[in-house]
Amino acid sequence: MEIREKILTNLRAVKERTPLIHHITNYVTVNDCANIVLALGGSPVMADDQEEVAEMVGFASALVLNIGTLNSRTIESMLLAGKRAKELGVPVVLDPVGVGATHLRTNTARKLIQELNPDVIRGNMSEICVLAGEEVAIKGVDSLADEQNGAVIAQKLASSLKCVIAITGKTDVVSDGEQLCLLDNGHRILADVTGTGCMTSSLVGTYCGAAKDYFSAAIAGIATMGLAGEIAQASLRHGEGIGTFRARLFDSIYHLTPEQLAQESKVRHE
Amino acid sequence: MEIREKILTNLRAVKERTPLIHHITNYVTVNDCANIVLALGGSPVMADDQEEVAEMVGFASALVLNIGTLNSRTIESMLLAGKRAKELGVPVVLDPVGVGATHLRTNTARKLIQELNPDVIRGNMSEICVLAGEEVAIKGVDSLADEQNGAVIAQKLASSLKCVIAITGKTDVVSDGEQLCLLDNGHRILADVTGTGCMTSSLVGTYCGAAKDYFSAAIAGIATMGLAGEIAQASLRHGEGIGTFRARLFDSIYHLTPEQLAQESKVRHE
Amino acid sequence: MEIREKILTNLRAVKERTPLIHHITNYVTVNDCANIVLALGGSPVMADDQEEVAEMVGFASALVLNIGTLNSRTIESMLLAGKRAKELGVPVVLDPVGVGATHLRTNTARKLIQELNPDVIRGNMSEICVLAGEEVAIKGVDSLADEQNGAVIAQKLASSLKCVIAITGKTDVVSDGEQLCLLDNGHRILADVTGTGCMTSSLVGTYCGAAKDYFSAAIAGIATMGLAGEIAQASLRHGEGIGTFRARLFDSIYHLTPEQLAQESKVRHE
Repeated sequence: MEIREKILTNLRAVKERTPLIHHITNYVTVNDCANIVLALGGSPVMADDQEEVAEMVGFASALVLNIGTLNSRTIESMLLAGKRAKELGVPVVLDPVGVGATHLRTNTARKLIQELNPDVIRGNMSEICVLAGEEVAIKGVDSLADEQNGAVIAQKLASSLKCVIAITGKTDVVSDGEQLCLLDNGHRILADVTGTGCMTSSLVGTYCGAAKDYFSAAIAGIATMGLAGEIAQASLRHGEGIGTFRARLFDSIYHLTPEQLAQESKVRHE
Repeated sequence: MEIREKILTNLRAVKERTPLIHHITNYVTVNDCANIVLALGGSPVMADDQEEVAEMVGFASALVLNIGTLNSRTIESMLLAGKRAKELGVPVVLDPVGVGATHLRTNTARKLIQELNPDVIRGNMSEICVLAGEEVAIKGVDSLADEQNGAVIAQKLASSLKCVIAITGKTDVVSDGEQLCLLDNGHRILADVTGTGCMTSSLVGTYCGAAKDYFSAAIAGIATMGLAGEIAQASLRHGEGIGTFRARLFDSIYHLTPEQLAQESKVRHE
Repeated sequence: MEIREKILTNLRAVKERTPLIHHITNYVTVNDCANIVLALGGSPVMADDQEEVAEMVGFASALVLNIGTLNSRTIESMLLAGKRAKELGVPVVLDPVGVGATHLRTNTARKLIQELNPDVIRGNMSEICVLAGEEVAIKGVDSLADEQNGAVIAQKLASSLKCVIAITGKTDVVSDGEQLCLLDNGHRILADVTGTGCMTSSLVGTYCGAAKDYFSAAIAGIATMGLAGEIAQASLRHGEGIGTFRARLFDSIYHLTPEQLAQESKVRHE
């Protein structure tokens, strides 16, 4: 099946199945993550107490772990939920927010990867470089050189961790170690709003909860955010900025059809 | 006094008295809960540390407890704040989010009910069924059969717990064990936005903080959210969805007058 | 340099330097604080675990401490981050939300002030009065008598604590103990939205992270929120209220130029 067809199928599957997406995530963007899952057609649930996460993940179609405001209590919950998810075959998406900035983040991300073997890891170039052990951390994939660099890093890391690696930036790179896909949707205003990275991970999680192919699920999630960003930005009138843009981002995803997404996704499948 | 007249009086009381509504609530929708209280004319305060909750509730006109992202630390705070509220005669509204999904939620909701005897409990059909010990949990009140079912369950549970039970869904049911009220406001887009249930509980809490009649306070809170949802939805133009809808929901409540609310509330008082 | 010129320079500095603003703040308004920093041109980071805050503040240009939903865990983190910030010369902004309401808040604010000696403290009249030990706590600076009262209290407290004190209200007062500035921007609808105080502290923090003069940084932060509030309010059409206003507030700050801010700031430098 061609990649556009898979994207179309994936969004249809979300809308038909309303997957329940369990999040253990940061308190900065948690409301946006819940609403973006709803906008796409999924159903979010946030639960982070050690006494209930394993039970809650039992109802979930996917688990999204985001270390944006990690603490000792929730790290333990992530491990408990993640282990249960793996036992049950529930896909795990990891967003290693800020990995590399502090030892706590780096050690936690490594521990989560080692103990849970996530199905998808989504981060920016700098975060994925830290995980890959690359010394040169750069901001997003902004040039052709970065793009080639990103492709190599994503493919290498995906192959070594046996998972899907997604690097988001000006050009996005997704690899499962064998296949590689570059995406060119999006608009730079997305970087001026907090949580667009977290929300992308939640979208990826929602697709993973409805589709069995996590490589195309990651692509669909990233294409959805990029395309919605383009539509929302194009709708802005004079004087409107990130406040209005945020509202329109949810509007755009809410109305996005599988056909439109498949057609307007700027995917380069290599 | 007829129910519409009570609704009118209740909203007037909120706007005159600016009741302070103490919340111990989840971190997903907490910002929306604060803004909805402000939109109605109340004043929100969120405080959840065990060292301050009993003191804070002393200034409050109502206490809203919401177990959406409960944890061992905040469960204890809910009990402390709730006991102090009962001592002081401050009304307690409980939103048993997700009760039935995990043992932690079910046990916590039961403990809060047993130890605090809340004045109002608001949930969806599935949540209230769990509290009532009913085995058949269904999603909201969507049909005539459900409506009659909901009325029986609400009345039975209200009578047994000696509190007001509010079940929200397509048709909402409110009972204090003797009186029964059905409400038909609302729009299905409300279910596509996170936190509309939590916000309804905050509205109910705000009315309870300004009116002594908690049965009509619960009705007013639910009618407010339903009517605001209708107005917000009717204002949407082509391409606008849940992002714009959310903003308009706050706009609508901000401008709602007591007269308009009383007039357009679709209440069936039985 | 005249104050308007400093305001202009300060906003230019933010846009050129993209200062990283580390927040340990409440979970009610944290998303708004992150987005307001981005709207101005800074970069927010929220991290509150004791194991990482000292390390994270090492990358920061300013630290904002907000006790809105303080708890024993985050109080300790505030002290750790604050001490490290002072060692590194990173400016510390304190928002003593609700000080005076509970012993925990009052004791915590006093401890933070004593141990950290913040560079700027921003609160409303009631909060600053508590810190100043004044017995008469009043709501904001609303009349000429209050204005003169506020000026005396700000100057006295700033002088005694050797920091910048900013009191926000109808008229805002900023003093460093010697200089005094009164500001008249703003609109009363700002008080109907949760978090406008917190966001003002985040704006002040962002300016402090880009400018070495914290007195003019505090003025610029307060003028920015006030002016953006005016612009956002003026843009509202019939039926629009706090929901739309909030979105426009971010839009306004996003498009604010240094020249416009300097020109339209209603500063009275005394």
